[in-house]
Amino acid sequence: MGKFVISVMEGDGIGPEIVKEGLKALEEVAKRFKHTFEYKYVYVGGCSIDRFGVPLTQETIDTILSTDALFFGSVGGPKWENLPHHLKPEAGLLGIRKALGAFANLRPAKVFRELINTSTLKKEVIEGIDLLVVRELTGGIYFGEPRGFSEDKKKAFNTMVYTNEEVRRIAKLAFDIARQRRKKLTSVDKANVLEVSQFWRNIVIEVSKDYPDVELNHMYVDNAAMQLVRNPKQFDVIVTGNIFGDILSDEASMLTGSIGMLASASVGGKVGLFEPIHGSAPDIAGLGVANPIAQIESLAMLLKYGLKLHKEAKCVEDAVALVLKMGYRTQDIATNSDKKVNTTQMGDLIAKAV
Amino acid sequence: MGKFVISVMEGDGIGPEIVKEGLKALEEVAKRFKHTFEYKYVYVGGCSIDRFGVPLTQETIDTILSTDALFFGSVGGPKWENLPHHLKPEAGLLGIRKALGAFANLRPAKVFRELINTSTLKKEVIEGIDLLVVRELTGGIYFGEPRGFSEDKKKAFNTMVYTNEEVRRIAKLAFDIARQRRKKLTSVDKANVLEVSQFWRNIVIEVSKDYPDVELNHMYVDNAAMQLVRNPKQFDVIVTGNIFGDILSDEASMLTGSIGMLASASVGGKVGLFEPIHGSAPDIAGLGVANPIAQIESLAMLLKYGLKLHKEAKCVEDAVALVLKMGYRTQDIATNSDKKVNTTQMGDLIAKAV
Ligand SMILES: CC(C)[C@H](C(=O)O)[C@@H](O)C(=O)O
Ligand SMILES: CC(C)[C@H](C(=O)O)[C@@H](O)C(=O)O
Repeated sequence: MGKFVISVMEGDGIGPEIVKEGLKALEEVAKRFKHTFEYKYVYVGGCSIDRFGVPLTQETIDTILSTDALFFGSVGGPKWENLPHHLKPEAGLLGIRKALGAFANLRPAKVFRELINTSTLKKEVIEGIDLLVVRELTGGIYFGEPRGFSEDKKKAFNTMVYTNEEVRRIAKLAFDIARQRRKKLTSVDKANVLEVSQFWRNIVIEVSKDYPDVELNHMYVDNAAMQLVRNPKQFDVIVTGNIFGDILSDEASMLTGSIGMLASASVGGKVGLFEPIHGSAPDIAGLGVANPIAQIESLAMLLKYGLKLHKEAKCVEDAVALVLKMGYRTQDIATNSDKKVNTTQMGDLIAKAV
Repeated sequence: MGKFVISVMEGDGIGPEIVKEGLKALEEVAKRFKHTFEYKYVYVGGCSIDRFGVPLTQETIDTILSTDALFFGSVGGPKWENLPHHLKPEAGLLGIRKALGAFANLRPAKVFRELINTSTLKKEVIEGIDLLVVRELTGGIYFGEPRGFSEDKKKAFNTMVYTNEEVRRIAKLAFDIARQRRKKLTSVDKANVLEVSQFWRNIVIEVSKDYPDVELNHMYVDNAAMQLVRNPKQFDVIVTGNIFGDILSDEASMLTGSIGMLASASVGGKVGLFEPIHGSAPDIAGLGVANPIAQIESLAMLLKYGLKLHKEAKCVEDAVALVLKMGYRTQDIATNSDKKVNTTQMGDLIAKAV
């Protein structure tokens, strides 16, 4: 019934292979729910460097801004690693996040019941983990000025900076999400050492006054890195700055043993960006063995957060769960007793299950 | 045969209780190896605030600098949490690290065989972990200027900065240590985003030319946080900046399940500082139940790195291992079948074993 335009950014490494499988599932969603999806292919990162000489062009930004959501593969690889900073693939990713105003990165860490044994943590520690890291994505040390090198090249520096408004909006968003979940919010900072963290904490406390029904606690980032290992189930929603969120969300996703399975949504701007948590895995690119599930989970997030199609999102998630239940696995998550499949087969199975 | 003067900083929370047990063991070392230890009691952090109104005085610094090593409890607690930044207990800890020029923080994460089951990770994943985080301790975002708040209080900022010399000396020290171990060094940074990390990486590569026998690899900090969970045994020595080291070393120590057991050494200056990795645990202070082992392991590090008394250090470590083997445990690490003891009893047992 709906008509949507989706920007598709296949990206580098395994990106194209797995994005393709995501679109397969999306076409099944279209049929089943009678939607039409139109695709606009765009290029960010290495594939943009190869085409246009820079990791992100204004035209790409404009195209994406004219669509309803951005379905994103992955960027980067050894080929472009020695370029100067502003020409690296990563600069394209950071640039598009900023251009879209996608200030909130939602990174759920959940355990797929069928894969619980792939985790390095004990089953009883991770069974039932359901936590969400809300990472501030367009501020902090990633974007702070001044940055660079001293003239004599004898030192280098970056600036971790937050404005009142930046902290306030991410805090609000995190409280709103916590309210819809188990009503527990942990704000992570390093307020015992950093002024910018003390500032962060004060504003989070101010915002909390509008959310008396949500329980707020504060945790230092070093302690949070420990507590995630010690007892991850204590967490519901974690809100934190850009670099702390980068570190903690990756740690959290690894706890579940399902890193090839997890997706993230970058929202808050006009158009949302939906991508897997994992990287471009250049070592296995082109071999047809990559696990497309994180990309397909990104699709579910796109449907849910980007297009507000909740039933459709659930349908995709259920399809993934079903195929896992049937015992199908790509090599990265397979044990001996599983039915091993390649990228395309996994994509076909999930599309069919949709 | 030797005569040494030790600064003793009991500190806040459980500090005094466990430092006392450390000194018990040290007195046994004195008897057994015929050394004399003289103690100078000093105050840093909360206990200094209570006495002198500030977390660190020049007199304290001077006293410590006149001694051979600093045996350090822990600082901080809710009582002082709302003081302005420069008056917080943590400012005392940072101040003394800086004043001593202790630019390298060595944080071993090892597994105590008897306690392997206390970890949340599977036994086969952590069995035999032997990794050391070398954290830069007197630079980076902890000390970078400018820092503070904008005049209109609408933003706050800190600066992550490294000089050539700072990176070079910590890199050298880390390579030297790796050379004495399994000859593998992992440098952790965020060079795909931060200029200061790119600078760090370049200098580490330069320094590596003098260590062709040590295998060097580079890892982004988010990936390192994951790899520690996925496969901690891949690491030998990790070298990284101040805040990344803070986060990763805490994560690493929690993997072992032995956080109440691990110590750290801050070296590189004239006088070294030796302290447990854990905090001041104000919630159990004064109850006599705290685990003194991390403090006693700090003593072992003091003997080894501070006084170069290797046999004596080994003797303390063996004493701890023996008492654990005999089945004695403080409550934090006890299971039902263990012989439960309190702080003093544990200290007595270890002193006796020395
Ligand atoms: C590729 C890199 C710039 C990026 C980041 O640090 O934000 C990635 O690690 C992520 O978390 O999405
Ligand atoms: C107490 C705090 C200032 C300190 C730090 O961050 O350095 C602590 O976390 C540590 O790691 O020793």
